[in-house]
Amino acid sequence: MSATRRAQIIGTGLVGGSIGLALRRAGWHVTGRDLDPARSERAREVGAIDEIGSDVDAELVFIAAPVGAIAELAAAAIDAHPQAVVTDVGSVKGAISRAVHHPRFVGGHPMAGSEQDGIDGSRANLFDGAVWVLTPTSQVDPVAHARLHSAISELGADVVTLDPDSHDAIVAVISHVPHLTAATLMGLASERATDRAALLRLAAGGFRDMTRISAGHPGIWPDICAENRDAIVEVLDDLRSELGKVREIVAGADRGALLERLHAARAARLRLPGPAVRPVGLAELRIPIDDRPGQLAHVTTAATEHGVNIYDIEIAHSTEGERGTLIVVVDSSRAETLADILRSGGYGATVTDLQ
Amino acid sequence: MSATRRAQIIGTGLVGGSIGLALRRAGWHVTGRDLDPARSERAREVGAIDEIGSDVDAELVFIAAPVGAIAELAAAAIDAHPQAVVTDVGSVKGAISRAVHHPRFVGGHPMAGSEQDGIDGSRANLFDGAVWVLTPTSQVDPVAHARLHSAISELGADVVTLDPDSHDAIVAVISHVPHLTAATLMGLASERATDRAALLRLAAGGFRDMTRISAGHPGIWPDICAENRDAIVEVLDDLRSELGKVREIVAGADRGALLERLHAARAARLRLPGPAVRPVGLAELRIPIDDRPGQLAHVTTAATEHGVNIYDIEIAHSTEGERGTLIVVVDSSRAETLADILRSGGYGATVTDLQ
Repeated sequence: MSATRRAQIIGTGLVGGSIGLALRRAGWHVTGRDLDPARSERAREVGAIDEIGSDVDAELVFIAAPVGAIAELAAAAIDAHPQAVVTDVGSVKGAISRAVHHPRFVGGHPMAGSEQDGIDGSRANLFDGAVWVLTPTSQVDPVAHARLHSAISELGADVVTLDPDSHDAIVAVISHVPHLTAATLMGLASERATDRAALLRLAAGGFRDMTRISAGHPGIWPDICAENRDAIVEVLDDLRSELGKVREIVAGADRGALLERLHAARAARLRLPGPAVRPVGLAELRIPIDDRPGQLAHVTTAATEHGVNIYDIEIAHSTEGERGTLIVVVDSSRAETLADILRSGGYGATVTDLQ
Repeated sequence: MSATRRAQIIGTGLVGGSIGLALRRAGWHVTGRDLDPARSERAREVGAIDEIGSDVDAELVFIAAPVGAIAELAAAAIDAHPQAVVTDVGSVKGAISRAVHHPRFVGGHPMAGSEQDGIDGSRANLFDGAVWVLTPTSQVDPVAHARLHSAISELGADVVTLDPDSHDAIVAVISHVPHLTAATLMGLASERATDRAALLRLAAGGFRDMTRISAGHPGIWPDICAENRDAIVEVLDDLRSELGKVREIVAGADRGALLERLHAARAARLRLPGPAVRPVGLAELRIPIDDRPGQLAHVTTAATEHGVNIYDIEIAHSTEGERGTLIVVVDSSRAETLADILRSGGYGATVTDLQ
């Protein structure tokens, strides 16, 4: 594209600053602001933003503020930036999605960088290979959604589409409860260490790995726990129940049951996918769609559910206006799979290998 | 020393092989054997042992076998190697210490390498900077204990002395229960992932760190859980109880209590000591002792409890026979501290800075 694209960042901490650096690396003009003027000034000094202020012509607005402040900031940004797709980077998505209803708002959550803090920790490659969740609801304008998806792919991230409540249930299991558990294990060890300097000296690699996240700043957690309370409580209950079963297995010296559990966990851990690598062969799917909200989200959610990574996305409008073509770029080895899934859902889909 | 020192390794897996490599690096002649002849042959091929077999003249015997097999092998080794100090590398120490009563047996536990497996993963620097626990009981001959302590320091490890039951209580907190918890978290995530390919794709750094140890081979855990059952069950009960409190805090949206817990955990995690670095300045403490069992263990345990690292140790016998001098080398900045502690316990102690 020839004209410089313009983005706005609201909140220039670690994540906001890294988005700015990554956008500028990709050729965007970035305006930033922060409640704390010293922080936006620092963001400009480190090159995370081009200028401080509010850009009425921004195409994209990223709200990188604490979870509890996002809904209000998003509503204001939708009004202040009339051309823009507005997104956020909060760790919980259900409440925000329910609070902000607008065709130009798509919730988001980059799964990177939560353990550090501050603009000076920001870097342009923070999102390279990281998963970035988008949680479009059915009222989102598919063109706005596609534009955001494409821009985030440009930042190096792999976009995964989920509905907001599924996102929250998943992060309770793989982020929120693990964090609370790490802190609890660290607390237990520390309590027992008061009269035994030896205990913490003995803490070897495994314990260090398990408790590393508990060294993060606690400040974000009350908001997260409040916004995702139900899912977190449910997973904590499951965890306590499972640990109760482990306790009975150990107390009863049930070697078979213990081995079964550990083997299953090992197999699952070894299956944990690594960062998505952009494959050598890419293919393009062309999917005719009405210009109605929800269709793009349906396609991208289907891709996520079937483990197909979407590397880029675009909507080509027909000259007649109402209909368009959704173009998604995927690994060529998975293109026919996704096409079949979409066809079985009533969509037309054609596949072309890209050289 | 001029004459080549001789060691025996029984069990040439990852830990046994690494001990062999480290001993040979330090100039020892190492003989090894394993129940599986292919494994001892491989150990010789990779240079972990000089020869296969049993060395009746060995000064040190390392038993690097599964926890459940150690007591029997140790008893046999004490008979088969009449000059040797016999030690083991098992992860649980109480039961072994109760089963093997002998002045020449000192239980041990190097806190390194448990996640990998097999002779081909062994390396000479596995113990560099790692903590190696020794658990001498009161009937151990102090000369045997000092000889072992000194040899293990030569392998690059930092020796920490604990009584066997304290060791077991500590590893329940910092190793055994964390391992079971990692496997349980991985199991929970995996169970919920069956219909959601997205879940495991979202698993970012924190979750990967927390579950890394669950990728280890499960084979060692039934023995460990059986031998350390009571301590593990106690810690699992504590963990479940603490997670119950966290659940109530989240359910009740008690921000203050949540922050308090997370801040305490963060502070403890940041205080976690790194690997001991050999300081620039060393000092020698000379402590007159009777040649009675238990005295050396008392001194080294006191050092551990007060966080003083002993870099080397030796017993110099007086010509009269019954009395001797214990010489321990410590960080010169901590030497007076340890001397004061020992003096208050009725020992004489003189400090000399080493240049």
